[in-house]
Amino acid sequence: MVYLTRVEHFNAAHRLFNPAWSEDRNREVFGKCANENWHGHNYELHITIKGTPDPETGFIFNAKKLGDIVKDELVEHVDHKNLNLDVPFMAGKFTSAENFAIGIWNELQPHFIEHGVTLHCVKLYETPRIYVEYFG
Amino acid sequence: MVYLTRVEHFNAAHRLFNPAWSEDRNREVFGKCANENWHGHNYELHITIKGTPDPETGFIFNAKKLGDIVKDELVEHVDHKNLNLDVPFMAGKFTSAENFAIGIWNELQPHFIEHGVTLHCVKLYETPRIYVEYFG
Amino acid sequence: MVYLTRVEHFNAAHRLFNPAWSEDRNREVFGKCANENWHGHNYELHITIKGTPDPETGFIFNAKKLGDIVKDELVEHVDHKNLNLDVPFMAGKFTSAENFAIGIWNELQPHFIEHGVTLHCVKLYETPRIYVEYFG
Amino acid sequence: MVYLTRVEHFNAAHRLFNPAWSEDRNREVFGKCANENWHGHNYELHITIKGTPDPETGFIFNAKKLGDIVKDELVEHVDHKNLNLDVPFMAGKFTSAENFAIGIWNELQPHFIEHGVTLHCVKLYETPRIYVEYFG
Amino acid sequence: MVYLTRVEHFNAAHRLFNPAWSEDRNREVFGKCANENWHGHNYELHITIKGTPDPETGFIFNAKKLGDIVKDELVEHVDHKNLNLDVPFMAGKFTSAENFAIGIWNELQPHFIEHGVTLHCVKLYETPRIYVEYFG
Amino acid sequence: MVYLTRVEHFNAAHRLFNPAWSEDRNREVFGKCANENWHGHNYELHITIKGTPDPETGFIFNAKKLGDIVKDELVEHVDHKNLNLDVPFMAGKFTSAENFAIGIWNELQPHFIEHGVTLHCVKLYETPRIYVEYFG
Repeated sequence: MVYLTRVEHFNAAHRLFNPAWSEDRNREVFGKCANENWHGHNYELHITIKGTPDPETGFIFNAKKLGDIVKDELVEHVDHKNLNLDVPFMAGKFTSAENFAIGIWNELQPHFIEHGVTLHCVKLYETPRIYVEYFG
Repeated sequence: MVYLTRVEHFNAAHRLFNPAWSEDRNREVFGKCANENWHGHNYELHITIKGTPDPETGFIFNAKKLGDIVKDELVEHVDHKNLNLDVPFMAGKFTSAENFAIGIWNELQPHFIEHGVTLHCVKLYETPRIYVEYFG
Repeated sequence: MVYLTRVEHFNAAHRLFNPAWSEDRNREVFGKCANENWHGHNYELHITIKGTPDPETGFIFNAKKLGDIVKDELVEHVDHKNLNLDVPFMAGKFTSAENFAIGIWNELQPHFIEHGVTLHCVKLYETPRIYVEYFG
Repeated sequence: MVYLTRVEHFNAAHRLFNPAWSEDRNREVFGKCANENWHGHNYELHITIKGTPDPETGFIFNAKKLGDIVKDELVEHVDHKNLNLDVPFMAGKFTSAENFAIGIWNELQPHFIEHGVTLHCVKLYETPRIYVEYFG
Repeated sequence: MVYLTRVEHFNAAHRLFNPAWSEDRNREVFGKCANENWHGHNYELHITIKGTPDPETGFIFNAKKLGDIVKDELVEHVDHKNLNLDVPFMAGKFTSAENFAIGIWNELQPHFIEHGVTLHCVKLYETPRIYVEYFG
Repeated sequence: MVYLTRVEHFNAAHRLFNPAWSEDRNREVFGKCANENWHGHNYELHITIKGTPDPETGFIFNAKKLGDIVKDELVEHVDHKNLNLDVPFMAGKFTSAENFAIGIWNELQPHFIEHGVTLHCVKLYETPRIYVEYFG
């Protein structure tokens, strides 16, 4: 079993707040992340798949094709977007890094299954100092 | 003459668009950066000052104090903000990396003059692959 | 289950030597790391916790609070210190990266338990080319 | 159990192609990587071993000695080489990152066994955006 | 005056040798870089231009367009190539980082002039530890 | 004119304090950097030289030889040392990054002159967020 990771980047705006709470409670829990006019990040996304090398190519899956799937099925839909307003799969969810990584897994998984690819991990850097990992 | 640089980070949302132009013209020139619901970045800021080492400390200026000035006078006012809506010194300006670097220089310069510090360069990374430098 | 990592930095001096050994034996085993006048590092610390997102916040734990715990309970006690002389939890131990990571786990664990947080991994870079991981 | 990783670098040329296929089929599957005149990479190699700290040193294994083994037994044989032409352990294999990581594991494993070291993972960056991991 | 830099990447093979010299003399001067079967690098290219922000956009030049020019006029012609065999503008030259940076400047300059862009610097990383800069 | 930079690393301990001052005054000015038991850093050193490519090699100077000079004449004398106690060229000086960069320039300059090399810049990272540059 070998693990192959492809790294992609995108930039997005978001805001962390709970609409069921007061402005004060939101500020208390989410701090500056609750700013009503949004803030944003350069997200760095690591998509890891696993498998055994194909004897005809040496690849567990073509890394260029892997990048194309991630770009077409995910990056195109989140890059230069507002995660709270523009991204259907995050609608009505808190746009925490945790929830976003789970959402990314769920978005990509059907496409990987279609290509016979086994997704292993979604690793998402929100900043160089905060990242999350989700293994399904 | 020695040059001393301090690196700081902040996260902000912004949008590139010219209100005098049509939606189409904005899309054509600014592409995805014109998204009306904003996008954002992890900005990395390098502030470079120059001078000769003080014979009593070996410092051209105390690096901790330099960081405090940059944090108090700049980062506090832009971190987790919307550059177009929340930042007075960018009001009515295009929030390009170029203009933002010039704005940062103008904001910090009076504070450095007050402390007898000679500002040399504002270097601003908008993404790991796009950065600007301004020398006043 | 989602894993959340927070990265912190600190600078410290240390020395690797076995007081039961001769100077020569120390030099032979620890090389330049045995220098009696110490050397030092910019340590980079990755603290990974795991859990499921809270339905009211989307967080497995507030990343800012996580950073505050790590800073208050660990970084304050090791930053700009001598690991052999100034850090009680390393007293009488070899200050190898391995032992230091175990020590950090043991220091932080009670605070995480108190906050209901499940610590998953302490990853410690001694240099950009040498790092250790400890999972308890 | 503690995990210790040492990072090494080397530069090499290679080409991805299947000699049983036509030029067209190779171009279709391997794209630019099939260029008959080769291309190359700055490979970054992370070798992770695991064990418990020795009570006389605090080390699971001497990191300098670990680096020396990796350099002597592997880096010397692949650095500034052509992976397809100059590296015996890759002879007749596709020089994909996947196969190369497996080959590196197999090359290093006997040397680690000889030193009583337990190899845990070979992580190999082909580019900053594509990496593979192999756990044996 | 503001300076804007765009970073691009490509992978290439090359070899350093002087055909007028013996094999021994080549080995003596160029060391492992003279390997007759080539080696290669992940090159990182920083293209810096300078100018004043356009009052209608805030840009000194559109960073996306800048990236497109660099990709179309340069990266397409060197990525996954052999610098000695496949790149016309390096034909008959030593493919040192120094000469390659000068060649890149000369290739890009006419395209920048055509777009009214002032090229300031070509910075080229051959490895993370060796880079060159050329200012024309 | 082309500029060539070689990057080297070393680890050292140091302390910032003025022996003419009280403990309190030292704490006030140097903060945690005054710790009497030392602290330390992973220093990253960029040595930049300038010249025109030699028509017989394409080099302004052999990058391997450049690295050897920096390692033999500087890194060997500061790596795993205490800058205040073990490094003759810093004796009696404040071991600020500024003074250390000037000291490095003065140490290396005679060796570069001897090899006909023109030193352009000493850039020294004390941490990833603080660096100095000295141009002689």
